[in-house]
Amino acid sequence: MEYTHFFKKALAASRAAAVLSPDQVNAVLREVAAQAREKTDFLLEANAQDLARMEAADPAYDRLKLTPARLQDLAQDLEKVASLTSPLGQVLLQKSLPNGLSLSKVRVPLGVVGVIYEARPNVTFDVFSLCLKTGNACLLKGGSNAHFSNQAIVSLLHQVLERQGLDAGLVTLLPPEREATQALLQAVGYVDVLIPRGSQGLIDYVRQQAKVPVIETGAGIVHTYFDVSADLEMGRQVILNAKTRRVSVCNALDCLLVHEHRVIDLPLLAAPLAEAGVEVFADAPAFAALQGEYPAALLHPATEEHFGTEFLALKIAIKTVADLPAALDHISLHSSKHSEAILAEDPLAIETFLNSVDAAAVYANASTAFTDGAQFGLGAEIGISTQKLHARGPMGLEELTSYKWIVRGNGQTRS
Amino acid sequence: MEYTHFFKKALAASRAAAVLSPDQVNAVLREVAAQAREKTDFLLEANAQDLARMEAADPAYDRLKLTPARLQDLAQDLEKVASLTSPLGQVLLQKSLPNGLSLSKVRVPLGVVGVIYEARPNVTFDVFSLCLKTGNACLLKGGSNAHFSNQAIVSLLHQVLERQGLDAGLVTLLPPEREATQALLQAVGYVDVLIPRGSQGLIDYVRQQAKVPVIETGAGIVHTYFDVSADLEMGRQVILNAKTRRVSVCNALDCLLVHEHRVIDLPLLAAPLAEAGVEVFADAPAFAALQGEYPAALLHPATEEHFGTEFLALKIAIKTVADLPAALDHISLHSSKHSEAILAEDPLAIETFLNSVDAAAVYANASTAFTDGAQFGLGAEIGISTQKLHARGPMGLEELTSYKWIVRGNGQTRS
Repeated sequence: MEYTHFFKKALAASRAAAVLSPDQVNAVLREVAAQAREKTDFLLEANAQDLARMEAADPAYDRLKLTPARLQDLAQDLEKVASLTSPLGQVLLQKSLPNGLSLSKVRVPLGVVGVIYEARPNVTFDVFSLCLKTGNACLLKGGSNAHFSNQAIVSLLHQVLERQGLDAGLVTLLPPEREATQALLQAVGYVDVLIPRGSQGLIDYVRQQAKVPVIETGAGIVHTYFDVSADLEMGRQVILNAKTRRVSVCNALDCLLVHEHRVIDLPLLAAPLAEAGVEVFADAPAFAALQGEYPAALLHPATEEHFGTEFLALKIAIKTVADLPAALDHISLHSSKHSEAILAEDPLAIETFLNSVDAAAVYANASTAFTDGAQFGLGAEIGISTQKLHARGPMGLEELTSYKWIVRGNGQTRS
Repeated sequence: MEYTHFFKKALAASRAAAVLSPDQVNAVLREVAAQAREKTDFLLEANAQDLARMEAADPAYDRLKLTPARLQDLAQDLEKVASLTSPLGQVLLQKSLPNGLSLSKVRVPLGVVGVIYEARPNVTFDVFSLCLKTGNACLLKGGSNAHFSNQAIVSLLHQVLERQGLDAGLVTLLPPEREATQALLQAVGYVDVLIPRGSQGLIDYVRQQAKVPVIETGAGIVHTYFDVSADLEMGRQVILNAKTRRVSVCNALDCLLVHEHRVIDLPLLAAPLAEAGVEVFADAPAFAALQGEYPAALLHPATEEHFGTEFLALKIAIKTVADLPAALDHISLHSSKHSEAILAEDPLAIETFLNSVDAAAVYANASTAFTDGAQFGLGAEIGISTQKLHARGPMGLEELTSYKWIVRGNGQTRS
């Protein structure tokens, strides 16, 4: 099959999208919200067709499932995006040059944003709203097992766009087959950025195959370092929260580093984890300290592969380190540069850690669970970037924009 | 050959580079400048070995050649970079969240910057100075026919770094063979960004092969639209300058679009081009207007492939358009989104053009020759990005940085 016509439609629509007024955009978003509430039956029926093809025991089943309450939440999210200030047109820099040229750097849309994701129909609404708000057209490649849901959602989006006199090419759902993904990855000249959302396998595949610019999101191999100066009670709360609040998310804690002089505190520090049923993979000193104190069924000796693993489960690795530099070295070696934390009372240790650790978010004395667009006050989130180019950490509206240089003259030539 | 040890050295050096003080960095840059002046003989001898392997008639010969005057200029450039304010540590955003967390977004180095370039030894100095200034380690893959020059320059850089007690891994010259390029393109986990500088062929190759994030630079297919309202004398000056100031650069004019009501002015508008010896490829109405007025030897009918060509020569395409929207359509179809200009007195035409055209730099009533880091006041330039992710147009120091989120708490957990 030939996919270029989809890409051409998106490119053409993106030209028009760049000059839409905020009022036009917000009217669309509010009408989509209203429709998401009104067309509940239509959307749930399509969703039921997808659900019927999946085992209820599949971990993806819950993410695939739409309910009236979830549609209500999605409608609220759409209205929230409508209420945000558009970053477009923001003047990032403005100056007059000695030769009389007026120079300004102005925020503009990226153009065409491609998103590859798994069976999560809520993402279809999210990506559309964030892209439209930022003047971008979007090309969606959703999971094939959510295709009925996505088709229904996109048909609803198209109806609203057409009623508002806008180009349906602003949102395109690509066919569910794998070849469409391949074509999207190679759509040089059509796609300004591609954002894969999903498993590490998907992200690795995209990195291997993409010929268009990509923003990597995803994997978080997250550490928290319990310094010699750390407060024990704070450590108990923060480590419990970072590990167990939601184990399936990328900011969840994977590896606790403990200063060797505080290994003695491990039984108390880890007690809340035991209550929560967390399996521990401990290095020799930590294992010795926990043995007899931590439930035997949940305590295992660590092997090398437990360090640098993103567990996404009630599991944690514990490693003893001689000092802060050793903690920094371990993090540098194993971190995926997502979220890293220190627990310490010593200001010098805190500053050294915050300055030295190379990660999207670095924390002192707080749970890494806060790495999230809404928590950071971005208003919305299209993903969490784990690369350093363009956007780092939670990506909101600004991260879906580029800029251009506008130069106004009265006949200037360069000597 | 195995190249991973080069990448590991650069990665290790980048950790140290991120926490260097501005004084340490500037001391290195000033000493390198002093050495570039003092070791003239050493550098010119190495350069002579490269020159001896190239025909003097080769267009690359002049770019390869170092002279005492050029080394003097390079030394001044190094001192200029030393005098600029470092963007590192700049606080891009700072707020206190309702839960008491203090959140700041702070500029940090990218990490390891790879640059692939052709036989231009001056780039070796430039990339080193801009990367060191921004706390990055750099991996250099220069043209093989400049390898003696590059080796000499990098040995000089290493001596200075060692004298200043810094890690020689801050700058690494990769071996001249093609396999090193291939390894660099695939150095996932080591290279944070790769910037290819050179021919379209090189850039296409990088886009096809790279598994690490890339910033594309280069090709400029540049238009200037002469509106129905444009001033003729201004047009003569600006078009001449944009086309002929330096034909080999990416911001040079490639295609003049003329409003059909102003085709009558073409003989006067193009007269300065004739004097400069510019070959014209004109569409039928423009050809008819120029016939008998423009030197016959320099006037040819345009064929389709002349539109969308980057000439890099004393050649220009001329196309007649019915109106501004037709000009915008032509630009949208053929532009490489580098630099685009309108010549007009009508304010509405100007605003429509500046808002609608999707390019790194959009001009009203000025020569596109100004698209340049120094002209835009960036202080320095590592390349001109033609993509929309991360950096667009001239890239200076800020564009060689990323940011991280620093979160300070007193035990906050997320509910």
